Amino acid sequence: MDKLFYEDFAVGQEIQLGPIPVSAEEIIEFAAEFDPQPMHLSEEAGKASLLGGLAASGWHTSALMMRMMIDAYVLKSHGEGAPGIEFVEWKKPVMAGDTLSGRTTVEEMRPLRSRPGIGVITTRHTLMNQNGDIVLNARNAAMVRMRQLPGAAQ
Amino acid sequence: MDKLFYEDFAVGQEIQLGPIPVSAEEIIEFAAEFDPQPMHLSEEAGKASLLGGLAASGWHTSALMMRMMIDAYVLKSHGEGAPGIEFVEWKKPVMAGDTLSGRTTVEEMRPLRSRPGIGVITTRHTLMNQNGDIVLNARNAAMVRMRQLPGAAQ
Repeated sequence: MDKLFYEDFAVGQEIQLGPIPVSAEEIIEFAAEFDPQPMHLSEEAGKASLLGGLAASGWHTSALMMRMMIDAYVLKSHGEGAPGIEFVEWKKPVMAGDTLSGRTTVEEMRPLRSRPGIGVITTRHTLMNQNGDIVLNARNAAMVRMRQLPGAAQ
Repeated sequence: MDKLFYEDFAVGQEIQLGPIPVSAEEIIEFAAEFDPQPMHLSEEAGKASLLGGLAASGWHTSALMMRMMIDAYVLKSHGEGAPGIEFVEWKKPVMAGDTLSGRTTVEEMRPLRSRPGIGVITTRHTLMNQNGDIVLNARNAAMVRMRQLPGAAQ
């Protein structure tokens, strides 16, 4: 299959993400390396915290969002990377045993003035757990190659 | 040592982060799980990309920032979690073999009206590589327990 170019996306387009399961083992493994706060390391400490049980680091949930974006469209596109994240909201804890899914919505598209042949696609991302509760909202921009230079002959 | 409360922080305070080394093995391991784009998986693909070599996923750099925050002050404080990230800018690629360090600056502090006894501390984070180049800027807010309720008797 040919990879997608900037021109293959459209404002308003929705792309499904996931599903992806989140195990206790993965939560603990990620937290031990990057975010070893007690509520991310054991069920007991999670129960004693405001989160009510073993819960994923917000950075782990964010990385799982990236994994779902990768599988849904990033590796199928002529992507040229991203300059960062506009925002991430961790709305509800992601608990051991949850299954996440979600959607990416294309919100804005514009040519990158400083680099002809590259377009910027701004996307909003929403992740839900298996009960339909929103656990994460985010927005970011990514650079995607154009099929042809603006103004080039057909 | 007693853990730090909200009252132990001050606007303008700077906290040193790191240093932390970033190996090729760690870059590939993180990317294989969460962000398997070619430039994060091999030196060859990295050299063929705009990044110029094997480079860490921006999400990996962000998780390493969390790790440095954990070691510098989060586990030493009465933290009550964070609602998200205001923004993250990936300014330059983090390459295999780089060593990151940085600083967290306290920018704003306010009591959380909806939960007496909790304060919100907003911090800016800057990470540099071993050459002093800024690789990441970010800002976020976290909730920290107060030593005593506002207005409580001394």
